[in-house]
Amino acid sequence: MLKKTNKRPVAGEIPAAWTPALKRLVDRCREQVDGALQTGLRDPNRYTHEVYRAMRYSLTAGGKRLRPVLCLLACRLLSGRAAAALPVACALEYIHTYSLIHDDLPALDNDDFRRGKPSCHKKFGEATAILAGDALLTEAFTLLSRPDLLRRIDPLRRLRVIEEISRAAGLGGMIGGQEADIRGEGMKVSLAYVNSLHARKTGALISAALVCGGLVGGGEAGPLKILRRFGERIGLAFQIQDDLLNIEGQPGLTGKAVGTDALRRKATYPALIGLEASRKTAGRLVAEAVSLLAPFGAQAGPLAAVSYYMITRNR
Amino acid sequence: MLKKTNKRPVAGEIPAAWTPALKRLVDRCREQVDGALQTGLRDPNRYTHEVYRAMRYSLTAGGKRLRPVLCLLACRLLSGRAAAALPVACALEYIHTYSLIHDDLPALDNDDFRRGKPSCHKKFGEATAILAGDALLTEAFTLLSRPDLLRRIDPLRRLRVIEEISRAAGLGGMIGGQEADIRGEGMKVSLAYVNSLHARKTGALISAALVCGGLVGGGEAGPLKILRRFGERIGLAFQIQDDLLNIEGQPGLTGKAVGTDALRRKATYPALIGLEASRKTAGRLVAEAVSLLAPFGAQAGPLAAVSYYMITRNR
Repeated sequence: MLKKTNKRPVAGEIPAAWTPALKRLVDRCREQVDGALQTGLRDPNRYTHEVYRAMRYSLTAGGKRLRPVLCLLACRLLSGRAAAALPVACALEYIHTYSLIHDDLPALDNDDFRRGKPSCHKKFGEATAILAGDALLTEAFTLLSRPDLLRRIDPLRRLRVIEEISRAAGLGGMIGGQEADIRGEGMKVSLAYVNSLHARKTGALISAALVCGGLVGGGEAGPLKILRRFGERIGLAFQIQDDLLNIEGQPGLTGKAVGTDALRRKATYPALIGLEASRKTAGRLVAEAVSLLAPFGAQAGPLAAVSYYMITRNR
Repeated sequence: MLKKTNKRPVAGEIPAAWTPALKRLVDRCREQVDGALQTGLRDPNRYTHEVYRAMRYSLTAGGKRLRPVLCLLACRLLSGRAAAALPVACALEYIHTYSLIHDDLPALDNDDFRRGKPSCHKKFGEATAILAGDALLTEAFTLLSRPDLLRRIDPLRRLRVIEEISRAAGLGGMIGGQEADIRGEGMKVSLAYVNSLHARKTGALISAALVCGGLVGGGEAGPLKILRRFGERIGLAFQIQDDLLNIEGQPGLTGKAVGTDALRRKATYPALIGLEASRKTAGRLVAEAVSLLAPFGAQAGPLAAVSYYMITRNR
């Protein structure tokens, strides 16, 4: 079921702790993504576009590159090589960034700050921010389809990557989740509502990142299914941690204002079940997620470590 | 160079007039597109989404289906069959509709009416309109990548279709054109500026419609190049006619307010060279475009007739 990797997988043994070697690996993935994003944005012919400057501004505003790193690690897990998935990783970050730009708009969440800097529409105006989001979303699909990238990947697999990402970003995924988020404000909603909201708004693209990394890595149905289920769980855990940081985070670290969810009476885990139970749920979800990786054995260490980082991070 | 068609092409002979048979053919194409769009939008699981209702509202608001029809006719020109390109035709209409929804937003053109009905944000509010545009853009790429559609098309060709459409819609195409349009308002600009603006804002997707129809129809480099150059010319002619209708059109027919371009001091052909010279330029462009189709002979009749319609239409 699994493709060959450097070491023979030993089922069950997953070192989830951050070792210096794991940290170096994840840092290298993040640097590769940053490098590829920078290279993709180095086009002097486009500098005259205010929209292009807005795209660059938001793309390089210091994101954690979580989705790209998960994509590279999933590719590495199945093929032994992470870099093959770099164009997909960049496309995921384009789509994530577009969603932040549009979500911050006055008509939506009306957020003036993002990652400690003025949000895109505060810096460039609303018209440019709308167009910059549109352009990032559109050009993600150029990255996935242009003939000079992903050349060695089977074209049918590339089409599956495009389908996976477009569905995760579409109405059945992020957009439907954002709609539920807005509609849920101030309403008394159930935990099922919040779960469905988070699964679409956050979980869908995180799962897609893992599945697409797996697709590029040559994964077949079995491993891809594990990656998807793993992604669903860590996606929800990540969003719960985000909601916790909105209550008890330090703005100096998160780069975001604190307490805004409560002000808007957003539908969140902490609002529904409290801080302590939310923390426990996030921990349980990550433990469940990591246990799903057992068939990959020790090779799954990096994904497990990143998962535990997700719920202990302070930004 | 050309694939076999029912009748032997006779270079040079292109009946550009509307015959009843041509009209039936184009009407049938339009009905096929409307039918495919309706089928694609018939998903009861999604009816709960306000965003979905907004997508449907704008997609079925009575567009001319120009880009889809051009796509189907280009496919028919090269393969003898129009229907093979239907999913691509629908994706083009999704992207065209998204661009209208976002362009109408208060931060951009601030248009309250579109095709004689309230524009999307007037009907559904700004947040839903932004998300509906995002969803149409995103789901266009689902239509192009899902495995149950375009099954018989070579996967590498499908990737070329996705690249073509994403580039036409991206910063080098529609989005860059929209930016130039906003920036040009009230400025003294040159005809070169207007040409470049129109080529990106309108011409790019019209050219892509033709090239993608040709790609699905099995076209090779030669015919695709002709279709692209043909599309560039009729795209500009179409936009000039649009600008003329903004001055002398009847709101009851166009469904749009008249005189808005002049009010905003938009960069248009009529504003720069006057009505009569604009009309002449549009006519010259279409004649040039149709002459490019000479290698296809009589088979190019439908595309020629649609081109002449573009500059004589009153809506």
